[in-house]
Amino acid sequence: MTVQSSDFSVRTPQREALVDITHEVAAIVTAAHVVNGTCVVYCPHTTAAIAVNENADPDVKRDLLYCLARLVPQLREFQHSEGNSDAHVKSSLVGPSLTFIVRNGRLLLGTWQGILFAEFDGPRTRTVQVLLQGE
Amino acid sequence: MTVQSSDFSVRTPQREALVDITHEVAAIVTAAHVVNGTCVVYCPHTTAAIAVNENADPDVKRDLLYCLARLVPQLREFQHSEGNSDAHVKSSLVGPSLTFIVRNGRLLLGTWQGILFAEFDGPRTRTVQVLLQGE
Amino acid sequence: MTVQSSDFSVRTPQREALVDITHEVAAIVTAAHVVNGTCVVYCPHTTAAIAVNENADPDVKRDLLYCLARLVPQLREFQHSEGNSDAHVKSSLVGPSLTFIVRNGRLLLGTWQGILFAEFDGPRTRTVQVLLQGE
Repeated sequence: MTVQSSDFSVRTPQREALVDITHEVAAIVTAAHVVNGTCVVYCPHTTAAIAVNENADPDVKRDLLYCLARLVPQLREFQHSEGNSDAHVKSSLVGPSLTFIVRNGRLLLGTWQGILFAEFDGPRTRTVQVLLQGE
Repeated sequence: MTVQSSDFSVRTPQREALVDITHEVAAIVTAAHVVNGTCVVYCPHTTAAIAVNENADPDVKRDLLYCLARLVPQLREFQHSEGNSDAHVKSSLVGPSLTFIVRNGRLLLGTWQGILFAEFDGPRTRTVQVLLQGE
Repeated sequence: MTVQSSDFSVRTPQREALVDITHEVAAIVTAAHVVNGTCVVYCPHTTAAIAVNENADPDVKRDLLYCLARLVPQLREFQHSEGNSDAHVKSSLVGPSLTFIVRNGRLLLGTWQGILFAEFDGPRTRTVQVLLQGE
């Protein structure tokens, strides 16, 4: 059994963006030589999140951001003085942590799935933390 | 320590459905002879998700699907040409992956909790991936 | 490799509340002497959830609860006879389980992150289940 910890940075291009990080995570899995186990992808920020969704058609990402912005607008009732409560709420709706399965040395993702860093208060340079555990 | 990987299929009955998969997951846990550890339940599809909620009263599942449909309707502003962006959004709100605790050889679920495969673009035959890790 | 299981109780003060449980979880991590691995925090209740968000300014928690209540009101179309379907829906939106990374013997949290027990149908005494796995 092995446990391996790793970080990488993501530069997000605008206030709200879904940045594909599949290749970064997959490269960490390959380098770790874990054959079977788990891969935790963790976002240490409170105005961002980790999502999985379709990567093939960019309209899916656009529609997802559009719908989240419609669900959680900048409400005038919000009291947090930084004015980014909408980003904090979206962060908790999408969630900061996802656990993936590693099988036969590869990240087990569905055909259309990509791992997305969900930025809700950018542009910023963000950190993604990864933990691999397995045999 | 042991790592065990497993799949099963779910046939979803209509476009939107919450299908109870508790027994399938619990059977995998029992067969794996893991005493203490984790059980990752993963959905490899971008228009479905894994949820946990009450199984006792079917009205809870009905109300959950009703509320999700109300929150994320088929918006005319959606641009994804397949016309199922609502399902993609719901998938990211509920999430593709949940990690359960295995204790004393059993899946640790609350009294009222069931594991639900959340279908948002069915009916389809779907796959659920499970990874057990522990001692 | 070690696997360690643990529980603690949370008393929630009102119907909807975000109770900081960071110290309870961090104390379990310290006591377990796991250096590198994962920490699963699990909510065995169907009207509550586990969240991560900013702990510094209490307005963030207030805005998060306000926004969730606005997104998921007590709809008259709900059929579940207990009258708490809003709490069941919020539970599935926020989610029952989060996996954290343990690195160098400490819970890896971002600067502003706290672990929050999200109560949607209190006040009650609730249970939180924790599983540590690592080396």
